[in-house]
Amino acid sequence: MSYFTKRYHPPGTAPGTLVEAPEAHADGLQVLLMDYSADGFTMKEDADIAECRDYLQSDTVTWVHVQGKPTLASLQELADFFHLHALALEDVLNSGQRPKVEPFDDQLFLVMMLPSIQDNKVTVEQVSFFLSRNVLVSFCEGSLEPFRPVVKRLQDKGSRMRSRGADYLLYSLLDTIIDQGFPVLESFGMQLEALEEKILNQAEPDTLQEIHMLKRELILLRRMLWPQREVMSQLMRDDSALIHSTTLIYLRDCYDHTVQVMDLLETYREMSASMLDIYLSSISNRMNDVMRLLTVISTIFIPLTFIVGVYGMNFDRHAGPWSMPELGWPYGYVLVWGGMIMIAVLMMAFFKRRGWF
Amino acid sequence: MSYFTKRYHPPGTAPGTLVEAPEAHADGLQVLLMDYSADGFTMKEDADIAECRDYLQSDTVTWVHVQGKPTLASLQELADFFHLHALALEDVLNSGQRPKVEPFDDQLFLVMMLPSIQDNKVTVEQVSFFLSRNVLVSFCEGSLEPFRPVVKRLQDKGSRMRSRGADYLLYSLLDTIIDQGFPVLESFGMQLEALEEKILNQAEPDTLQEIHMLKRELILLRRMLWPQREVMSQLMRDDSALIHSTTLIYLRDCYDHTVQVMDLLETYREMSASMLDIYLSSISNRMNDVMRLLTVISTIFIPLTFIVGVYGMNFDRHAGPWSMPELGWPYGYVLVWGGMIMIAVLMMAFFKRRGWF
Amino acid sequence: MSYFTKRYHPPGTAPGTLVEAPEAHADGLQVLLMDYSADGFTMKEDADIAECRDYLQSDTVTWVHVQGKPTLASLQELADFFHLHALALEDVLNSGQRPKVEPFDDQLFLVMMLPSIQDNKVTVEQVSFFLSRNVLVSFCEGSLEPFRPVVKRLQDKGSRMRSRGADYLLYSLLDTIIDQGFPVLESFGMQLEALEEKILNQAEPDTLQEIHMLKRELILLRRMLWPQREVMSQLMRDDSALIHSTTLIYLRDCYDHTVQVMDLLETYREMSASMLDIYLSSISNRMNDVMRLLTVISTIFIPLTFIVGVYGMNFDRHAGPWSMPELGWPYGYVLVWGGMIMIAVLMMAFFKRRGWF
Amino acid sequence: MSYFTKRYHPPGTAPGTLVEAPEAHADGLQVLLMDYSADGFTMKEDADIAECRDYLQSDTVTWVHVQGKPTLASLQELADFFHLHALALEDVLNSGQRPKVEPFDDQLFLVMMLPSIQDNKVTVEQVSFFLSRNVLVSFCEGSLEPFRPVVKRLQDKGSRMRSRGADYLLYSLLDTIIDQGFPVLESFGMQLEALEEKILNQAEPDTLQEIHMLKRELILLRRMLWPQREVMSQLMRDDSALIHSTTLIYLRDCYDHTVQVMDLLETYREMSASMLDIYLSSISNRMNDVMRLLTVISTIFIPLTFIVGVYGMNFDRHAGPWSMPELGWPYGYVLVWGGMIMIAVLMMAFFKRRGWF
Amino acid sequence: MSYFTKRYHPPGTAPGTLVEAPEAHADGLQVLLMDYSADGFTMKEDADIAECRDYLQSDTVTWVHVQGKPTLASLQELADFFHLHALALEDVLNSGQRPKVEPFDDQLFLVMMLPSIQDNKVTVEQVSFFLSRNVLVSFCEGSLEPFRPVVKRLQDKGSRMRSRGADYLLYSLLDTIIDQGFPVLESFGMQLEALEEKILNQAEPDTLQEIHMLKRELILLRRMLWPQREVMSQLMRDDSALIHSTTLIYLRDCYDHTVQVMDLLETYREMSASMLDIYLSSISNRMNDVMRLLTVISTIFIPLTFIVGVYGMNFDRHAGPWSMPELGWPYGYVLVWGGMIMIAVLMMAFFKRRGWF
Repeated sequence: MSYFTKRYHPPGTAPGTLVEAPEAHADGLQVLLMDYSADGFTMKEDADIAECRDYLQSDTVTWVHVQGKPTLASLQELADFFHLHALALEDVLNSGQRPKVEPFDDQLFLVMMLPSIQDNKVTVEQVSFFLSRNVLVSFCEGSLEPFRPVVKRLQDKGSRMRSRGADYLLYSLLDTIIDQGFPVLESFGMQLEALEEKILNQAEPDTLQEIHMLKRELILLRRMLWPQREVMSQLMRDDSALIHSTTLIYLRDCYDHTVQVMDLLETYREMSASMLDIYLSSISNRMNDVMRLLTVISTIFIPLTFIVGVYGMNFDRHAGPWSMPELGWPYGYVLVWGGMIMIAVLMMAFFKRRGWF
Repeated sequence: MSYFTKRYHPPGTAPGTLVEAPEAHADGLQVLLMDYSADGFTMKEDADIAECRDYLQSDTVTWVHVQGKPTLASLQELADFFHLHALALEDVLNSGQRPKVEPFDDQLFLVMMLPSIQDNKVTVEQVSFFLSRNVLVSFCEGSLEPFRPVVKRLQDKGSRMRSRGADYLLYSLLDTIIDQGFPVLESFGMQLEALEEKILNQAEPDTLQEIHMLKRELILLRRMLWPQREVMSQLMRDDSALIHSTTLIYLRDCYDHTVQVMDLLETYREMSASMLDIYLSSISNRMNDVMRLLTVISTIFIPLTFIVGVYGMNFDRHAGPWSMPELGWPYGYVLVWGGMIMIAVLMMAFFKRRGWF
Repeated sequence: MSYFTKRYHPPGTAPGTLVEAPEAHADGLQVLLMDYSADGFTMKEDADIAECRDYLQSDTVTWVHVQGKPTLASLQELADFFHLHALALEDVLNSGQRPKVEPFDDQLFLVMMLPSIQDNKVTVEQVSFFLSRNVLVSFCEGSLEPFRPVVKRLQDKGSRMRSRGADYLLYSLLDTIIDQGFPVLESFGMQLEALEEKILNQAEPDTLQEIHMLKRELILLRRMLWPQREVMSQLMRDDSALIHSTTLIYLRDCYDHTVQVMDLLETYREMSASMLDIYLSSISNRMNDVMRLLTVISTIFIPLTFIVGVYGMNFDRHAGPWSMPELGWPYGYVLVWGGMIMIAVLMMAFFKRRGWF
Repeated sequence: MSYFTKRYHPPGTAPGTLVEAPEAHADGLQVLLMDYSADGFTMKEDADIAECRDYLQSDTVTWVHVQGKPTLASLQELADFFHLHALALEDVLNSGQRPKVEPFDDQLFLVMMLPSIQDNKVTVEQVSFFLSRNVLVSFCEGSLEPFRPVVKRLQDKGSRMRSRGADYLLYSLLDTIIDQGFPVLESFGMQLEALEEKILNQAEPDTLQEIHMLKRELILLRRMLWPQREVMSQLMRDDSALIHSTTLIYLRDCYDHTVQVMDLLETYREMSASMLDIYLSSISNRMNDVMRLLTVISTIFIPLTFIVGVYGMNFDRHAGPWSMPELGWPYGYVLVWGGMIMIAVLMMAFFKRRGWF
Repeated sequence: MSYFTKRYHPPGTAPGTLVEAPEAHADGLQVLLMDYSADGFTMKEDADIAECRDYLQSDTVTWVHVQGKPTLASLQELADFFHLHALALEDVLNSGQRPKVEPFDDQLFLVMMLPSIQDNKVTVEQVSFFLSRNVLVSFCEGSLEPFRPVVKRLQDKGSRMRSRGADYLLYSLLDTIIDQGFPVLESFGMQLEALEEKILNQAEPDTLQEIHMLKRELILLRRMLWPQREVMSQLMRDDSALIHSTTLIYLRDCYDHTVQVMDLLETYREMSASMLDIYLSSISNRMNDVMRLLTVISTIFIPLTFIVGVYGMNFDRHAGPWSMPELGWPYGYVLVWGGMIMIAVLMMAFFKRRGWF
């Protein structure tokens, strides 16, 4: 994830101006059309926008899911069709929005963030919803995979979704999006535990980078997911006619999950900060051990080197009786060795007792 | 405690889907049935769920406590029996929830966290409650032990619980759960004091790990217990018909205890952070002492080694009068020793006065 | 102050269970009975609880102050007498509560924390109050001394207290308790200034312990005193019939003082955290100075030692004209000395100019 | 940006006192007059204030934009003309205000901050607005450039602005100002990523200054932009008759952008703080590597130097059989070399296995 | 500024007890009496309190300003005269209060803090106000200077103050007090910039003390000024009859200034904390440079010293052909020099390429 992911117009552009993403292709776009009621279910995997019209009038629930980067033309067509507000469409195109819920006349516009994790790399996709009576239009640039289970549940004749309205469908999708946070957090949790293990046992300079990257992803993810809590809470408090009171109990459950996700993110962030401290202490402890040992070795040899230096002096032994008489003693050399070994042993004992190595 | 403890369904699963825990056995499950009023008390330690039916109609209070990991079948049976909501049952099975209170029609669903400590290791168990008029159903996967005193009080004919409703029973259990925080915190307090003692006197590299582990447990515990404050406060404010006004005064006392627990957890967390700082300073102070002493030793010997090196030079004394005449002086050697001792003493005095060792 | 100071029952104990403190003695307990109105004042220093009854009926204000650890029997007697609630009595016995105010029927129950300082050691005592119309019962395990000035003011016929009700008496005692915070904070302020002086001038390893202990006491004191702000604010907002509106203006003054105490505690805590940073920097600056000086000394001698080593080599001067001819020069020795002195002076000048010693 | 940018009067000056900026020139000032309705558009690039009068009476919308530092005389003239409040005018002159919105009788006075970035240097300009029915007066000391797109949209006959009131014009300008934050933040995001790259790979002392400067700019920018969130929220809640309800939906979009800007600023600030930690660790890791390698080299040579010192001692080989007999061995010299090489190899192997170099 | 500046009574003292400051002298006290209306202005620089009485009855506005430490007698006289409440008078005498506004019957009592700066030393004086209809009594122990401009404006016949009530006078004085914060903050801003310059270029140990002192002053100042924001906001919301609605617009301006002052203080505090980090990094970077250079010097000489040690060994060249034959080579000495120079050059090249010096 990079720090700045928002797509935006040059300041001063008129509100509601729509600019196609450079990568948008009519080909890359896939429109899924589903129409269902308790009695029947129709699905077109690669629907034409014009086809949708037929399903709009009926009392059945219609879900139009636009997968991929929409071209300007198709978006405009959709907008005319479903009376989508230009300001909201701008937010669909300029992905990297904050999650939010906004009422437009007889519609509810929602922006959500769908996190996913692959090989410890987190990606976040924007998902946008337009809810009106009996119709839900959704946009997602990323993969369709996360929503497959919902489609499958829709196909199941006996499922509760079939007998409920578009608001329950919206809830099911929101629930799916929010619950995607759990595998992400589970992976983060395991990464944290692996890091902790590493830091306390054998911290290496590379670990620093790992901690930083984890912390960075946690901070960026928190920024993106944080407003979802507010979105869910607003949706619950909202007395919009579009949300049936029977769906509220489910939204409450969903809200509960956003709170759990944020709680975990906060805790992880706190732990990752704490791990940096522990890493530093751990590295510094190890460095101290190394330096102390090396310094102890030097310190033991320094007085010995001085002693051998003393007997390397060239004072003239014949100058007088006090001029290095030791050099002439038969056991002088042995005594010096004995003295040096004693000094070394004493120093090592002293350092050992002090616990310096 | 590990970082991620929540059990969860794959995202997209229908709400209220119940999945049996892999370790669930019909054998491991124990259903306690208690039925009481001011006049009588009946208890079945290993009740059959079907037996419960007989006690439900009466005006007496019925407490069904399910101990262990429930199988899907038994849970379903219980749910049918007591009209437990599927979303709530999902939360019972997917343990690792946030503490919460949720009203469902004529029931109140509560999730609480029961901490306990054994050999300085903290474990937290989820306890779930369904309160309806005259009936309390509770689920706990951990040990029954913490609730034994409540059972004992129920058996005592004169106790206040016998003449009160199911709400007072709920209060008694909540109170027991929350008060379990005090021994845990007392143990943490003692650990902190032991750590503090250690850090200020003889900090060791291992201490780092101890501080980190303590901090980690405090952070994780805080995350789990923090929402209980909100639960108690909601329970008090709630004008649910299920809570008698006479029980409110007791809930207030209970709320007070959650606040005390959180206060202590916060203070401990702050202290543990502070201790890391002190640990670092302490280790660094000791390291400084070691390095300073070793460096002082080296520094004293370095000029001496230079001096003996000087008189180890092989300049030809016969080359001229200025060519190392000292080597021929009768007391040259003694003078050098004297000079070196003086230098060493002066340096030591200087370092001593500066307080360097 | 230790980290965990709360006395508590084993979890699961029935609410309102009273357990005598192990040190409680009927002897150690002292009951002060005061009864006063604008016209008269009666005081019994070592009253019998039974005596109190006579004073209760009258219109005069009665203050019963229980000093020391009450025995269960005497507490029960008092409770029966004054209709004290069992839950509140439990809080009186289980000292180490959070400051709080709780209404019980026609009584107001308050817990406050009385700090005091002696030789830079802070102690905190719990003081509990039961206020009902015309009667105030107070419990304090610590010394009676802090309340002496209030007793003295009561004895003074002309004092405002004599003509006011029990609520004004309560205010006077609360005011006394809260104002005890000022001498404590003044002492902390002086300790902080002394520490600051020490840190900036001659930080020593012991200073670390002092900073930690100060910070610890500030954190623990803050935890205990923080809720008093809420207590005073609740008392002011409360439209209890027990607090006359004329007393409110005084409670406002009292509230103001709690805010001042908390403000100072917060500021001190912030300063103590800041001082740890300064201490570390200061210690590290001094250590750097020492190490730099020592290293400079070594660095100056190392090339010199190398030079004298060179002329200590035993190359055979007769092997050829390029084999250490310097050794035979009449002024070789002097030149070497000159060179070495020059090198040492140059290096010192270089290090000096760089500001390394 | 410097820390203190506010222009202010000497304390005690009468409120509403206007003091000309020292750099103000009648020449530097440029008054843009625009008058438009759905049908027509008039624009005078360098208008005379007196000219404005003619446009005020009409039902068309009039926008007077004052570019540059106004002289006292021209400001007074404008004030008389448009009935601008003296306190507000003081805020226009004393630039460096907090963003705010203030109602004055039948006017709305707004102060906003316009950030811009050039070569990684952020500058912030104050823009002030007076909104009354059909008239908008704006002041900006900086460049006109950011507002050019709005002027261009006004000139476009078909644009929505032409058929709306002065409140929609104000919205368009506010939107332009707030959206200027995005390029600034995008630049900050890229700087952060570049810094991160640098820190993790090859941190240098200069990097410290870069981090500090970035952090400083983020903190100062946050202080200046933070209140804009409050301004937009107030504008939306305000039931002022000057803001049409149809404009509210646009203001909501605008508010959303201020929140996004603040979110990003907060995240960046947090990341920049985190980067300082990583920088320190990174520098310290590299320093440790250097010192360890150097110390390892010294430690290997120190025992070797001791050994050669031993055989440099001048004990008289003729004094006895134990007096340095090694010196007379035919292979003594070779053995010493062998021993020293073995010691060096063993030490290197030991240090290598420990991972010390 | 010292940490604890509050003057307080011994705990337990009756509320409203007045104790003279030890330095109070009737001589040091100066009472300024001003009486004015749109038509006239009277001023007595050294008024007698008795004189005030004559001015109280009239419809003109009377301002009594008491400069210096009041004696008990004069304070009592003033209190009787103006019906000042004893609790408020206590706060006037016991300076070091928190800024606050308190209504007493038909009076408003305000405490404010007047900061001023002299040679980078900040001092804060308490200023107290009693506002009643047409009368303002103010107390200030510090210098009269800050209020001189207000007096001068009063003397000016045409000024707006003359035609307004006592509330506008109060506003003018509050505005003066709050605006005194700007020069103080400007000075802090310049100090911060100077410090920043110093830290990034040539950090010295003394800088630590400067940072600490600046941070300390910012923290203490923030504690004292923070509540003024609340005071101004309360004054604005207050529907007291003493504040005319026409004055509210001015108070709003004044409130705005308190917010600006607090914003700046917060930003400065954050910057000063950040500067400590930068200082530490900077010092540590420089120390690292020094140590690295010194260690590099040592490391280069250590192998050289070893080599010269080798050829200082006294092995008997006549013992065999392998016993130090180099010593007899005609160019042995030159070769050793050559080898050593090569080693030194190679090492320097290696260290240079690694960027170690």
